Amino acid sequence: MSGGAATAQILAANRAFYRALSNGDFAAMDRLWSREGPVSCIHPGRPALAGRDAVMASWRSILARPPAISADQPAVAAHGDVAVVLCVETAGEAAMAATNVFARSAEGWLMIHHHAGPIARRPSPSADRPTTMH
Amino acid sequence: MSGGAATAQILAANRAFYRALSNGDFAAMDRLWSREGPVSCIHPGRPALAGRDAVMASWRSILARPPAISADQPAVAAHGDVAVVLCVETAGEAAMAATNVFARSAEGWLMIHHHAGPIARRPSPSADRPTTMH
Repeated sequence: MSGGAATAQILAANRAFYRALSNGDFAAMDRLWSREGPVSCIHPGRPALAGRDAVMASWRSILARPPAISADQPAVAAHGDVAVVLCVETAGEAAMAATNVFARSAEGWLMIHHHAGPIARRPSPSADRPTTMH
Repeated sequence: MSGGAATAQILAANRAFYRALSNGDFAAMDRLWSREGPVSCIHPGRPALAGRDAVMASWRSILARPPAISADQPAVAAHGDVAVVLCVETAGEAAMAATNVFARSAEGWLMIHHHAGPIARRPSPSADRPTTMH
């Protein structure tokens, strides 16, 4: 497979992850995660979850009230049969930096790790200026 | 190589990363990062950095004032020639969840991605209780 074809498949897997998340589709989310190796997940502000049972339990809870989330600026770095995808998640006014790791399997590229954390907002230019009364 | 030997090498690479960070040792940090493939880094609260030049520039800046940081509870998940290491970073009273990704090369396991983000502190039990005047 050419690198370009692999990249397209990895990006499709990344989109499928955010579609399952936005749609609250647990069955789709479950299919996206690898059953072949160890998986893990770090949700924003939370400690790491290790193991498929703990990871899927967290998604079941999150997907019960699916967030309105979009993922932009995906960047793929493939290292053989493992790929790291970075993207920016936006949910309301919050922006998060995400690391999504996929491994190639007979069923395609499956998720083995997700880590998302908030990006601090820069102060607005007006907040930088000293307040002056006129 | 047995899985156990690989795990020991991956854990040693993870320790070397935190040693370089705590010691402000840029040369050691530079040796730890892969030159073979794309690398990336997400520092706490910051957007993703992609590419070796951007990543190493960030470390040069951070290592100029090295943080007193320790890394505990490392957990290794190896997927062929790529390994995901999770650990908890502690710097002062702040705890961070970290994802460190390493790829096997002729020089050993080299870093290809680092992502750290704050773990929110749980409110202390006393903060949960309603305040009552006696």
